[in-house]
Amino acid sequence: MYGRGSFEQLDEILAPHRKENAPMIFLVDHFFEGKPLLGRLPVRANDKVFSADVTYEPKTTYVDELANHLKESYGKVSGIIGIGGGSTMDLAKAVSLMMNNPGSSADYQGWDLVKNPGVYKVGIPTLSGTGAEVSRTTVLTGPTKKLGMNSDFTPFDQIVLDPALTVNAPANQRFYTGMDCYIHCIESLEGTYLNEFSKSYGEKALQLCREVFLNKTCWDEESDDQLMMASYAGGMSIAYSQVGVAHAVSYGLSYLLGTKHGVGNCIVMNQIEEFYPKGVAEFKRMVEKNKIDIPEGICKGLSDEEFEKMINVSLGMKPLWENALGKDWEKIMTRDKLRALFEKL
Amino acid sequence: MYGRGSFEQLDEILAPHRKENAPMIFLVDHFFEGKPLLGRLPVRANDKVFSADVTYEPKTTYVDELANHLKESYGKVSGIIGIGGGSTMDLAKAVSLMMNNPGSSADYQGWDLVKNPGVYKVGIPTLSGTGAEVSRTTVLTGPTKKLGMNSDFTPFDQIVLDPALTVNAPANQRFYTGMDCYIHCIESLEGTYLNEFSKSYGEKALQLCREVFLNKTCWDEESDDQLMMASYAGGMSIAYSQVGVAHAVSYGLSYLLGTKHGVGNCIVMNQIEEFYPKGVAEFKRMVEKNKIDIPEGICKGLSDEEFEKMINVSLGMKPLWENALGKDWEKIMTRDKLRALFEKL
Repeated sequence: MYGRGSFEQLDEILAPHRKENAPMIFLVDHFFEGKPLLGRLPVRANDKVFSADVTYEPKTTYVDELANHLKESYGKVSGIIGIGGGSTMDLAKAVSLMMNNPGSSADYQGWDLVKNPGVYKVGIPTLSGTGAEVSRTTVLTGPTKKLGMNSDFTPFDQIVLDPALTVNAPANQRFYTGMDCYIHCIESLEGTYLNEFSKSYGEKALQLCREVFLNKTCWDEESDDQLMMASYAGGMSIAYSQVGVAHAVSYGLSYLLGTKHGVGNCIVMNQIEEFYPKGVAEFKRMVEKNKIDIPEGICKGLSDEEFEKMINVSLGMKPLWENALGKDWEKIMTRDKLRALFEKL
Repeated sequence: MYGRGSFEQLDEILAPHRKENAPMIFLVDHFFEGKPLLGRLPVRANDKVFSADVTYEPKTTYVDELANHLKESYGKVSGIIGIGGGSTMDLAKAVSLMMNNPGSSADYQGWDLVKNPGVYKVGIPTLSGTGAEVSRTTVLTGPTKKLGMNSDFTPFDQIVLDPALTVNAPANQRFYTGMDCYIHCIESLEGTYLNEFSKSYGEKALQLCREVFLNKTCWDEESDDQLMMASYAGGMSIAYSQVGVAHAVSYGLSYLLGTKHGVGNCIVMNQIEEFYPKGVAEFKRMVEKNKIDIPEGICKGLSDEEFEKMINVSLGMKPLWENALGKDWEKIMTRDKLRALFEKL
């Protein structure tokens, strides 16, 4: 469901999915604490609103804690409604899955490990760019890796894309998150995994990113509309493609330093002309045009052991490297070369 | 699911939806009678293959006959798999709905009249352009009107988009059907009902149509890939937009003369420069480039009563006219003006 004001239909959307005595659980980005959005939630009967703490990107421990709390408190729930940015989307998807799958979410970090569908889940993004609202993954930081629960059961049952919800996003955050979409597109369109489905969506998302971040002279309602569609199309594009170098490297940063995904991608994109010369040049024009600061020098003073950790996490993202550099990627992206890249960030 | 060869996964796709003693029903376009595709169907146990007679576009009587036959023969079925062009897609969707809704399909021609979800249904297009594989309607010719069963229950549960299935489509048919998509896009992008969702999809579909019908020098595998994506994107675009003059007029032709949708749209598009000057000019370039004959003079010799019938069916498509011409459309498209247009076709 897409459109300004579509959030008002949430009560109607949820109604047929309500089960007796089983609450709807609203997981709302802590950004909205004390804000009017909370008053607009269609809370009924024993429904419960939780503030999603996304100070850090979701950890498997946090997912398990939330899912276990819900199971202990309510037995069954009717559904999980995630409202927020990419972290909240991922958290909602993961908690939904963990309501119906035993063990820890860390057990399911990987591809097609999830065995059972989750409970009914709805995604309502309030920040555009990650594509988490449509993707088949939910990126989690676990005890040994930062990796998603990629599965056919992961996507939301329903998404509500109301661009009016993104109006108050801080400009820096909006840019970093929007760049997640832009970088996705560059990585997938220049990758070796691609078909016409992903190409069509990727090209459309890219065009919309260019429109809002380069061509337009000011940010208006239409920009919010367009960036929300860019995020959706970028997420759809990933169905039959893969991300590449920027994501693989940024996962390493995020694992060790807790660098958030959007800004992490930007930090890496800033330094990888070698792999995406045109894309990086255009990215830099977008940074300049939008007057955004991209942090530098964030790896200064790290120990050898810390670099090794980041390199291990990053090189573990095999499909990303293969997409970017082909079957022989290990010969191209050696540990030394990757270390040199991390040192530049 | 999109991709060359994805049809081979059909058995795996159907497996979790099979219910004991309830067959999967394959409704296959009669075009494939005696062709190798029939040997590739994953027929198991008491599954049944029906040849879908699409000599004419689906009639409500035919839908009812098929659904009643299935109910009498099997009681319950596990699912309906439609394989063919737009008519077969519509037939499969309608039969699925009529397995779980009482009365005649003619009772549900309109908007949101369908009360119950249908049985599990899968759409596998073998011709690209109509968007019927993703749309929320199923166009049927009934006793008093040509109108779809538009509802939230109408879309397929699963679609399999394998461009390899379209390789043997006759060039004329491929063009007429492809133009359905092109004309959709012109009508929706120039209409008054539109949001960023529909605009994004419509623009992408339009661009792909231009690519295959104007820019490329020969028809190749990539053309099949692209036209299949154009059809899908064009169908998605209709979610938040509407078609316009060409469709409204062509419904009249089809109701009275049985003119098939694709060629009917082309016959009308050829004569409506007044409403879509740029789109019609480009359409004519596509016709010329692809060396296609568009029939003319098909309304010659019709009686006043017959013209009245066409005018009534056409003017009944209120949302299409409003989208094309605005709230005051009745002042613009008078019965006399429409009669003059029909006479030109």
